Amino acid sequence: MRYQESVIEGRNAVTEALRSDRPMDRIYIQDGCQDGAVSTIKREAKKRDVQVRFVAKERLDQMSQTGRHQGVIAYVAAYEYADVSDILQLARDKGEDPFILLLDGIEDPHNLGAIIRTANQAGAHGVIIPKNRAASLTAVVAKTSAGALNYTPVAKVTNLARCIEDLKKEGLWFACGDMGGEVMYRQNLKGPIGLVIGSEGEGVSRLVREKCDFVVSIPMKGQIDSLNASVAAGVLCYEIVRQRGEQ
Amino acid sequence: MRYQESVIEGRNAVTEALRSDRPMDRIYIQDGCQDGAVSTIKREAKKRDVQVRFVAKERLDQMSQTGRHQGVIAYVAAYEYADVSDILQLARDKGEDPFILLLDGIEDPHNLGAIIRTANQAGAHGVIIPKNRAASLTAVVAKTSAGALNYTPVAKVTNLARCIEDLKKEGLWFACGDMGGEVMYRQNLKGPIGLVIGSEGEGVSRLVREKCDFVVSIPMKGQIDSLNASVAAGVLCYEIVRQRGEQ
Repeated sequence: MRYQESVIEGRNAVTEALRSDRPMDRIYIQDGCQDGAVSTIKREAKKRDVQVRFVAKERLDQMSQTGRHQGVIAYVAAYEYADVSDILQLARDKGEDPFILLLDGIEDPHNLGAIIRTANQAGAHGVIIPKNRAASLTAVVAKTSAGALNYTPVAKVTNLARCIEDLKKEGLWFACGDMGGEVMYRQNLKGPIGLVIGSEGEGVSRLVREKCDFVVSIPMKGQIDSLNASVAAGVLCYEIVRQRGEQ
Repeated sequence: MRYQESVIEGRNAVTEALRSDRPMDRIYIQDGCQDGAVSTIKREAKKRDVQVRFVAKERLDQMSQTGRHQGVIAYVAAYEYADVSDILQLARDKGEDPFILLLDGIEDPHNLGAIIRTANQAGAHGVIIPKNRAASLTAVVAKTSAGALNYTPVAKVTNLARCIEDLKKEGLWFACGDMGGEVMYRQNLKGPIGLVIGSEGEGVSRLVREKCDFVVSIPMKGQIDSLNASVAAGVLCYEIVRQRGEQ
């Protein structure tokens, strides 16, 4: 399992975990706990946008694994990130041209989870996300990925544009999914490919877009602006699947 | 505008609205209000799964349009549903073969909104949802539809299976999006079509599935079960777009 949740119990342990950078999903606090240590936890949780739930002591007793929760239990997400080389290796192991998704600034955990799920089903070899301006792999992502997080490797890179340059040396072509490009049905998407998906608000950032070999577009027949990011990723991924199947 | 939000203020008005069947998005209650009328509102809200937020009196004063909120303000969604005949008329007006999405039990409002958004962009003429076992058109749906709810007609029918029978008389073919059918790239999806999308948990119900002319499947290459419902709807819609474009 690449992804697992761990439980942290007790006031000091939870406070420390909050102050470190571990992605935390949720904190359970005993109803009526009002002292200083608990107030600190509530304040830090608010700062970091971690959900807090107040529950009865009996509930915490049930959840506790150590029996020493002191009125506070937190759930922390732990995911073992892959390296980009693992993703390339997976493609080699399968004897397939690499097919990688690069997500430029997807911040909504539901979208991130749904995209990892789609990547798995479309037979992509992995997903690459940037260290900054991106959702990290929390329980919400794991849940919306419907288990895919355990199978499809996700790598985190400091600089997406540099990562694209490195992967070009491995023979990959880069398709930037955005408006204003060739319609996907007419664009050749065969061979080793990296598909770049931008955030809903901003699309693909200029620096990353400039590194791409071409822009590929979904035909838009409606009156509104765009598709949901995970739907757009799905539509583009399956156009790649179609073209690969026709080879 | 087919969709708009309206504001209801005051204890009696909110209580009545809660007891009627109007889709309510959220209730704001003044911090510290504990009396009987407010308790009733909280209880009814809980029963109907309406979100309640507690805010300061100043916030309610700002939100109030009447100045007589009595500590309670509710947001109610109002959407003017279309008739199925409106959807067919829209196709005729455009001189196109009808292309309709039928959603069998999509209960997640984010999925419903994303599917309406996709329907709009893929050039579908409308969306049909059943009266029961389905999300209604709330503010969350309107928001995730990114405005599409104002352009793409949504009709609500009592019986989806009977609706399919009626539409068959209009010349539509029905494709059931589900596992175990012909792979979508090899299935003819041209001509007047109704695409049926099932709920994530259950898929398309047996009665509805039996009314369909064929089952069409997205190739699944992964280790997990399925795609997110709105992603699956997007992938199938755009395969229809591709095949229509090739005519």
